[in-house]
Amino acid sequence: MLSRDSLTKCDASDPLALVRGQFALPDGLIYLDGNSLGPLPKRATLRLQQVAETEWGERLIRSWNQSGWMDMPARIGDKIARLIGAASGEVIVADSTSINVFKTLSAALALRPDRRVILSTRDNFPTDLYMAQGLIRQLGGRHELKLVDGEDIAGHIDGDVALVTLTHVNYKTGRMYDMADITRNAHTHGALTMWDLAHSAGAVPTDVNGAQADFGVGCGYKYLNGGPGAPAFLFVAKRHQAQFEQPLSGWLGHAQPFAFDPYYAPAAGIGRYLCGTPPVLSMAALECGVDILLETDQAQLRDKSLALTDLFIDLVETRCAGFGLTLATPRDHALRGSQVSFHFEHGYAAMQALIARGVIGDFRAPDLMRFGLTPLYLRYTDVWDAVEHLREVLDNRLWDQPEWRIRQRVT
Amino acid sequence: MLSRDSLTKCDASDPLALVRGQFALPDGLIYLDGNSLGPLPKRATLRLQQVAETEWGERLIRSWNQSGWMDMPARIGDKIARLIGAASGEVIVADSTSINVFKTLSAALALRPDRRVILSTRDNFPTDLYMAQGLIRQLGGRHELKLVDGEDIAGHIDGDVALVTLTHVNYKTGRMYDMADITRNAHTHGALTMWDLAHSAGAVPTDVNGAQADFGVGCGYKYLNGGPGAPAFLFVAKRHQAQFEQPLSGWLGHAQPFAFDPYYAPAAGIGRYLCGTPPVLSMAALECGVDILLETDQAQLRDKSLALTDLFIDLVETRCAGFGLTLATPRDHALRGSQVSFHFEHGYAAMQALIARGVIGDFRAPDLMRFGLTPLYLRYTDVWDAVEHLREVLDNRLWDQPEWRIRQRVT
Repeated sequence: MLSRDSLTKCDASDPLALVRGQFALPDGLIYLDGNSLGPLPKRATLRLQQVAETEWGERLIRSWNQSGWMDMPARIGDKIARLIGAASGEVIVADSTSINVFKTLSAALALRPDRRVILSTRDNFPTDLYMAQGLIRQLGGRHELKLVDGEDIAGHIDGDVALVTLTHVNYKTGRMYDMADITRNAHTHGALTMWDLAHSAGAVPTDVNGAQADFGVGCGYKYLNGGPGAPAFLFVAKRHQAQFEQPLSGWLGHAQPFAFDPYYAPAAGIGRYLCGTPPVLSMAALECGVDILLETDQAQLRDKSLALTDLFIDLVETRCAGFGLTLATPRDHALRGSQVSFHFEHGYAAMQALIARGVIGDFRAPDLMRFGLTPLYLRYTDVWDAVEHLREVLDNRLWDQPEWRIRQRVT
Repeated sequence: MLSRDSLTKCDASDPLALVRGQFALPDGLIYLDGNSLGPLPKRATLRLQQVAETEWGERLIRSWNQSGWMDMPARIGDKIARLIGAASGEVIVADSTSINVFKTLSAALALRPDRRVILSTRDNFPTDLYMAQGLIRQLGGRHELKLVDGEDIAGHIDGDVALVTLTHVNYKTGRMYDMADITRNAHTHGALTMWDLAHSAGAVPTDVNGAQADFGVGCGYKYLNGGPGAPAFLFVAKRHQAQFEQPLSGWLGHAQPFAFDPYYAPAAGIGRYLCGTPPVLSMAALECGVDILLETDQAQLRDKSLALTDLFIDLVETRCAGFGLTLATPRDHALRGSQVSFHFEHGYAAMQALIARGVIGDFRAPDLMRFGLTPLYLRYTDVWDAVEHLREVLDNRLWDQPEWRIRQRVT
């Protein structure tokens, strides 16, 4: 029988227990929203001060070379590459996830000029779909964005499909796709794949080259703990890099940016996917978050992630039984990311009640309570305590407050 | 007769003298490169610490609402609007200058569907041209980027021209175009205008609405002192905002981003020019720089800018006569930005010699020594001292060092 005491023992023997000390987590708060915004790495505070006062303040313009600012997109990209199974020179940090979706979709469509369909799922993260829609409109409407249900993807891959684009781990349910299987299927039909790794990098084992994936994008501010609005990353398999000049062809993607030639000539490798000048302060914070992950054993992370999500599911289903919560996240480990979501009719209000008690998860319409269970800094006892709060909220109908009947914007 | 003593008196009576104290400038350095990277506002150090430790570290995800992160793009945009003669709701901060060029050029071409020419100058900042080239390629090549010499612009505006796009103040020479006159000419021929204000905002009087300009973009890290790679801004005249959905249609430009609808519907106003999640740390630093400018009298800034550039030209031409330096910047105040450039055969090496002596300007191929003269923090005596260093470099042929014969990358 599970008890809080038994979980104290799990924490004591947790090989990742010390990693929590790398983060500045407020006392008394249980943070289950690292899948939306990861917490502050302690080292980022010092690093930001150093970048501001020494690199910007003292060295000024010289820091582009002397402080390595110019190398940040490739350097941090190479670090992220190690987290997603890419090779050095296949990942670069730039812009936002949305912008990087535009670049990679443009490339994929150009590589399959005779095909007209981008295949994705209705429940893909909206910005991926919006960027595809913007691109299709700009290309004159000869392409189609075909949205299907996740389980039907395989059946819709045919000779019309230029590109299959999916978010590897769904942002609502935490359901994970089999990247290798879908990519194999796509390639069999001559289609390419672009994977949104926003909920994968730093969260689940990810091997883009093992899966033969063609393109990828991902987010810096979720499981990479890179800070609010951290720059995003982009993966282009080496075999595709030289074949296309992506349309957002800004000066930092030029073969010789400082020649100031009026005509664009793309850089040789992944560098051509750069566009404008990188936001150095935000990049520096991102690097701190990525470094913590690189210092951590990825297999241990996955083991603990599965243990935490199993525990959370088990506790909610036993201790909060009878209140109408139903699991939205797959029970099968092979299909699970590092979050757990439950459907609940009063989910929005219940989440507000939890937040008011210092348990921070979030809500996604129409009825999903979403809990990120991040092994880097969460304890087994945190999971117990969070579920106890949830039980009290449900038991005492604490969600039934007038101010929470009007739904507000939840980020 | 000018002397250092007489300039000490100018500094003593300078109404902007105290503004220098707002910046962290290293002792003994004369910084003439604020047109490339503005210096650190002292308040930015504290602000970054607050954003990191309190807003990110303590409030975490709640800061998107509680700390006003969500409002940053519009709030800082409205502040910049006041510096460039735009109305509230016409400017937004987002992405990089390059990305914003792509958005505004896309809009302009869509508003002139029957026209095929983008008209610009050969010496426009390259990324503006590169983004136009990328856009044209993506639109299938039915458009043409026509590059002419600056003085010939007027003669090339005709019924084929969809858009005239210029950098208001040239990055090499500091030459300023007459925005109102060129825009009037463009409109007479049915063309639109897009102005790159990278060397204008915070540097010279700029009145986009007075000039009836259609679109604009600009840089956060030069005269706005927003930090390395600071987010950029974008201006769209109100009359054009509802007419087009720009193609980089990311979730933050959606009418209801948190409805997570799979189909894009653009926000009503300038908000539709947003794309992905803003880099909050970099945005926060930018706001510090912009705030200093808003606390400063813009007419006094222009007066001092002209006085400093006049003084620099005068001193170089008298005290450094006979060494072959020739002025590249217009003498006419109406045509001058806030920088001065000189052609010099050994310009690259001479600039390295100056930098080694603590006078930081920069170099642009093939032979331009570029000096930003920023009235916010430069003193009249700084100009004297900088020219004395230059005189000594020339007089003693200090540029004639073997290590400077091989040109290195200059950012």
